[in-house]
This record gives sequence, structure tokens and C-alpha cells, in this order.
Amino acid sequence: MLVAALIERKRDGAPLTPEEWSALIAGYLDGSIPDYQLSALLMAVVFRGMERAELAALTDAMLASGSRLSFGGWGTPRVDKHSTGGVGDKVSLVLAPLVAACGVAVPMMSGRGLGHTGGTLDKLETIPGFRTALTLAEAKEQVMRIGCALFGQTPEIAPADQRLYALRDVTATVEAIPLIAASIMSKKLAEGLSALILDVKQGSGAFLRTHEQSLELARTMISLGEDRGCPTVALLTAMDRPLGRACGNALETEEAIAALRGEGPPDLMEVTYALGVEMLLAAGVERTSSKARKKLESAIGSGLAAEKMEQIIEAQGGNPGVVEDPAALPQALAVEVYDAPATGVIVSIEPRTIGRAIVAMGGGRSKVNDTVDPSVGFVISVKPGDKVLAGEPIASVYARDADGIALACDALGRAIVIGDRRTEPLPLVSHRVTKAGIEVLRAPQAAEKGRGKAKK
Amino acid sequence: MLVAALIERKRDGAPLTPEEWSALIAGYLDGSIPDYQLSALLMAVVFRGMERAELAALTDAMLASGSRLSFGGWGTPRVDKHSTGGVGDKVSLVLAPLVAACGVAVPMMSGRGLGHTGGTLDKLETIPGFRTALTLAEAKEQVMRIGCALFGQTPEIAPADQRLYALRDVTATVEAIPLIAASIMSKKLAEGLSALILDVKQGSGAFLRTHEQSLELARTMISLGEDRGCPTVALLTAMDRPLGRACGNALETEEAIAALRGEGPPDLMEVTYALGVEMLLAAGVERTSSKARKKLESAIGSGLAAEKMEQIIEAQGGNPGVVEDPAALPQALAVEVYDAPATGVIVSIEPRTIGRAIVAMGGGRSKVNDTVDPSVGFVISVKPGDKVLAGEPIASVYARDADGIALACDALGRAIVIGDRRTEPLPLVSHRVTKAGIEVLRAPQAAEKGRGKAKK
Repeated sequence: MLVAALIERKRDGAPLTPEEWSALIAGYLDGSIPDYQLSALLMAVVFRGMERAELAALTDAMLASGSRLSFGGWGTPRVDKHSTGGVGDKVSLVLAPLVAACGVAVPMMSGRGLGHTGGTLDKLETIPGFRTALTLAEAKEQVMRIGCALFGQTPEIAPADQRLYALRDVTATVEAIPLIAASIMSKKLAEGLSALILDVKQGSGAFLRTHEQSLELARTMISLGEDRGCPTVALLTAMDRPLGRACGNALETEEAIAALRGEGPPDLMEVTYALGVEMLLAAGVERTSSKARKKLESAIGSGLAAEKMEQIIEAQGGNPGVVEDPAALPQALAVEVYDAPATGVIVSIEPRTIGRAIVAMGGGRSKVNDTVDPSVGFVISVKPGDKVLAGEPIASVYARDADGIALACDALGRAIVIGDRRTEPLPLVSHRVTKAGIEVLRAPQAAEKGRGKAKK
Repeated sequence: MLVAALIERKRDGAPLTPEEWSALIAGYLDGSIPDYQLSALLMAVVFRGMERAELAALTDAMLASGSRLSFGGWGTPRVDKHSTGGVGDKVSLVLAPLVAACGVAVPMMSGRGLGHTGGTLDKLETIPGFRTALTLAEAKEQVMRIGCALFGQTPEIAPADQRLYALRDVTATVEAIPLIAASIMSKKLAEGLSALILDVKQGSGAFLRTHEQSLELARTMISLGEDRGCPTVALLTAMDRPLGRACGNALETEEAIAALRGEGPPDLMEVTYALGVEMLLAAGVERTSSKARKKLESAIGSGLAAEKMEQIIEAQGGNPGVVEDPAALPQALAVEVYDAPATGVIVSIEPRTIGRAIVAMGGGRSKVNDTVDPSVGFVISVKPGDKVLAGEPIASVYARDADGIALACDALGRAIVIGDRRTEPLPLVSHRVTKAGIEVLRAPQAAEKGRGKAKK
């Protein structure tokens, strides 16, 4: 196989065969194909895309490069949720225990924050003692015992994807829909699922910013899942502003725990319930959306969801006491209230500016191996559309020191645009995509308007 | 400097600054920027191109990475010719001694064959003892003493280009006009020239296949040359069929020697004279094309050109006896005559198929460090437009063994298309491009039709 000839073919717009994709991935893993050839090929894919058969072959090759969870004849349905990533998106921490409390097993393999977005693993690891590095055997045992495990991509799962992702990250080849889809699905299809629900973010804070790109990503992942026997449904949700109020690892974990105890902000709950409904329907434990929604609400109301979180934390070596008392989470050394610099209406809150500020404050990664300060971040108590008065507290800032506070306040000044008139934010949940097609939804915006209290 | 951000910017269609290009090349050379980032950037350049200021910065950075020939106040004009590469293109071996015999110094730095094309160095090295690895000092001394040196790109010349080219070759990023132009010009501008003549190939066997691409490459190189004080003129010549009859290193050297002795095939002579005329005009040793042409013809007729070749060979350690007796060149172990498989007219002779067959027979490189069998190749005695009878000998095949013969005959069967009616080949020399604009020329096709004799 002459690799340069394959790169040339893709560069010139013709597809590679499934066998060629398999050989490329195998060669990359065994070291016979160097990084520099693969990165050039990936850049050609950014421009040329991939046909369905190519994408299937790439996904299968990445999946086949590692191990898979297998639950054999176990009767409990297994459903996971995957989000394409955003700012303030702590849905997984609420949803996984919540759905598990409703009798659906959730083997949830998550990632770390990268770029401007946060990562579930970083949030979970703010819980003292919590161990996300489970082996596949441990994860399987835990899922079968308590219905949920929250763990990281182990070296056993799709190692080809792990190496490819690290390369893409430093070569500006992340933002290609087929590569994103193959990366996500090669991991999710290794979880031994009965069904998969996708949370595809759209808006300025999403990796793919336009509605059309988000829709194409959703469709691509759905066909990859369905073709491999895993029913897959996607919701398109808003990432033109942060989700919930808290942004930053420990602050988001605290907000997720509050949500499990019935005290979550309305937008977070809306997205969580919408995804949870899909998970219960896909698992077959409820037949209608309204029944599924009631089941989820009562799991929170009864305390079962919060208890499930305690079980999970305990099973993974963490301190379950944080569910009762979030003060056990890491606390920032410097805290400051941020006041509205002007009177007016909140026009927008730019998630990328917030996410990048967290990275700059030490709370995110600019390289894969960066360590993260779990305590830093923001709690923003306003939403686009809210009216504010100059001098009114609208956010709290959590940092390491005075420099971090200054940096954070500067970022808020740029991220939060106050103007004369309200502009319409994206609907929280705008579309439901299945193999059958696209339904247009519009989750109520009104639910978002209830002003939360500034934290602490 | 965050390299991934620069790659992203180029990927998304925005230019990099000249300072960023300089820093990228410096970082690549000092090892702080890895191959895989540069190859992704280069692939983005393939799709996005480069603006004039970017290209100038890249060329200057590559030129500045190494040494340059300097002839100080030496009064003899120095002119080189560069070809963008083809099949059967042994023009340099004829042209350099020929022009030097007319009183113009030719410091000619050439390359090796790569891809489907041959390389001047490989052809020269079929002459027993011929040493192409001259130092710059040796090349300069020889040029000043006998008017010509034929040597390879030394490690001193544009090392950045050398590393970049090796990377481009294995990542399918060779065929990008700005990268081709920067690579060529960073080397040619290091030769201390008074002027440069470019032979830009067009047609199916050229690296750039369309007329428009060839023209764009010519214009790009001309503006790079002229902006740096080196008058530059390009001829667009045909590479929709092999040039001359011989294809393969030793066979081409033999044909070049025959050409220096006045026995070259008409198409080879036509292209050689056209380029030679430009070199004499650019050097200022003749004022009109017709006088320049006559001077070239008489240098061949008088034996001065062949003598100059003997001087060059002797100066570079080779056996000058090959000019009198080409039997001293490497001879293939297996030779076979190839007969026309059908009666009809030669519709086309595809150069890529011929060039690739030579590589497959061991006579070319698929990797930079491959060694080359100098003896293998083809002598094809027909040209597009010729009428042939089934069973008539139309080519000779030179190989290592019976397998090579079979492979070569199969390739000829695919490369030589025999049909019912003649299609018009490209004019041998179609355009002359200068900084002032484009002149349309049409070198006589008739000269090509004279059927050559099958060699040996």
C-alpha cells in the first residue's frame, strides 16, 4: 500500500475503499504509517469529507482496535448519552444517576475537557477520592450491580481513536464532521449499548457552530449507530449561552448535585429531562414522553436519583458525603461578586469567552496533559433576555488569586453583552433527529427566564 | 506561537503573515515544530493556496536557510534552465553542455527522479565514475573554469526546502503551485544566476496537468524570480507523450549523447533548441532568436557541444569515453522488441504509465532512498499520429529479467493507444511567458512525425 497515493486520492476528492481505511488504521497503530502522513490525510478529509462506506470502515477499524463491553444475555437495557460538548454542560452528572434510578443501566464512558469546553471526567474528579480510571471489567461489574458506572476511555477502548484524536488536536483537524462522528461512535459502540442518545450542541459555543453542521453531525452519527444495530436518537440543544449557572469543574459538580436534589436551574433541568425521556423511551421502560418525564421527575422528588449518585460515588472510591454537603468539594481561594456594568437587557453570554477564561484561570486544558485547578470558574445568575441594573450583582467569580479574579472579571465584561433590546436565544431543545427524519421541537424559553439566585 | 492555530487559520482560508511563515520554517528546522503539524499545514495550503506575500516569505525563508553561489564580479553571464519534470525529458544533459559551448556559464543544480518522472542526477550517474555530489566551492570553480557544472542540491543549499520536499513527497502535498514554485525558486535563486529559463511541462504526464495550472506555475515563478532580481522566462512544453524516444536513465543518457552529436530525435531537439535560444538571449550573447538558434546548431554541428560534455564528465570524475562509445553505459540484461498489437494510428502514448512502469521495473524511486537500476526502460520509436501495422516493431524494452520484460510489455500495451483516427497532440512549445505577459507559440508538429528507427 503506497500511503502517499491514498492521501493523493482523497486530496483529489475520490473515496478510499473500506479495506484501505482498515489498512491505514492498522498501519498507524503498528507504527508503519507515520503521524505526518496521517495528519496530511486527515487535513484532506477536512476538505473532502468521507463517504458513508469510508466512514463506516474507519469507525469499525477504530472500534476493532480495542475491546468492547459485553453484557451477554443480561436483560437490563443499557442506554448512554453523549454530548458534543459545551460550556456549563454538566448534564451527564445529573442524567446518568437519574436514568439509572429509573431502571435503565448507564455504562457512561466520558472524556476530559479540551479547548473551551469542560469534560465530565474533570468534573467527577472534583469529588474527593472519585476514581474514573475503571477497567472495563470493573465498569461492567459496577453497571450490573448498581446500574451505572462513570468512567474514562480506558486504553482498552478504541486505542486507534485515542491516538488519532491526539494527532487531530494539534493539527487543526478536529472540526471535520466525519472524523468527529467516527471518534464518538467508535467509543460509544464499544459500550455494549441497547440504544444511544446524542446531545448535539449548536450555536456559537458548540464545536460546530451552525445548525446545518450540527444536523449533519447528528445524521452521520445516527446512521453509523443504526447500521451497527444500535438505535440512535439525537436532540439538538442550545449552546449559544452556557447551560445552567455554574461553569468550572467543582462549581458544576455542585450544581449537578443540586439538580439531583431538585434544585437545578430550569434550563439545565429542561435539557436533562428531554434527554432522559429519550433514554427511557429508547430503553423501552416507558412508552410515552409524558410518562417518562413523570418517572424522571419523581426519581428526583423521591431522592432516588441523589441516592443513586451516592452509590456511584461510593462504588468508585469517592466521598458520597458531597451529595449531602457540597462543601467537601474543592473551594476557590478567591471569590468575588461581579456587578452589571450597565443597565439594560442581557443580549448574549458568549460561551467560548467563558470557557477560554476558565482555561486561562487554570481550570481547563490547553494541552492533553495539563493539570486542572478544579475550583475556579463562574456562577452566572443571569440569562439572555434578563433585565439588569447597573451595579446589580449578576455573577460570582472563583479564582486562585487576585490575578485570576481580574482575568475572570475582564472575561465576563467581554462575554456578557448588555444592550437595549433582547435578541432571541436558540431554543433549548430545537430538533429531534432519528433514522426516520427530523422533528422540529421548541422547548419553552420561559422556563429559563426565572432568575436564579447568585450562589454563595 | 500556537502552531495549531496557524494551521487552523490557513485551513479556514486566511493568510499567515510573512513573520509567521519565517517562524514556521525556523521552527521546523530547529525541530520545535514536528513533521505532522507541517504536513497538515501543507495540505491546507494545497486547498487554500498562498498569497503573494506569503509565498515570498516562504521562498526567502528557504533560501536563507542555506548558502548561495556567488560569482562576485565575474563577467560571464550565468543562466540555468529548470524543468518541472517529465518522462523522457533528458533536455538538461543536452542543453547544459550545448549552451556552455556557446559561451554562457551554466551552474546547473538538478534533482533526482521522483514519482513517475526521471531525474537529471540519476541519468548523469549512469556515466561510470560521474560524481554529482559537488560542494558549492567545487561547482563554482568548475563553472568558472569550463563554463558548466552538473550537480545535486548540496546540503548547503536551501536545507529547509530539502526537508520540506521530502515531507511533501510522502504526504501528497507536492502538487500545490505555491509550494512547487517556492521549492524550485529557493534553489535556483541560490545559484548566483544572471537569468533563469523555465521549462514548464503541461499535459497528462506533467505534475500539473492542465494548461491553466502550468501557466499559473510559470507566472508564480516568474514573479518570484523577477522580484528578487533574476530575470525569468518560461516556455510551456508538451508532456502529453514522452519526450524523445528513450525513457529510462542509461537509455536517456545515451539519447542525450546522440543529440549532442547531432543524432537526436526531432522533438527532443526542438525543445532543447527553444530553451537554448532563450538562454542565449537572456545571457545577452545573441540578440535574435534566429541567430541564437544558428549558434546552437553550429555548436552541435562542429562537435563543440559534445566536447563540452566530455570536459564536464572528465571534470566530475566520469569516463568521457561514453561520448564516443555509449556502450560503456550500463546495459540491460534482458531486451525485447515490442510489436504493435493492432493496425491503426497511434492515438496517444501516456507518459505516466511509462514512468510508473520504469519505477516498477526498478529504474525509479518510490521512496527517496530507493536505489535505481540504471539500465531498465523503453525506447519507443513511434509518436502520436504515426500509422502502424499489427506485428510491426514499435518499441524496445530493456529490463533486468523476464518478469521485467513482461511487466514492461504489459505497460506498453496500456500506454500506447492505437485507434482509428489521429488526435492532435499538444504543440511541443506552446507558450512563452515573461513578466510582460504571454506569447502564444506553436512549434512545428511536423518535426515530430519523422519516424525514428527502433534502437539496437
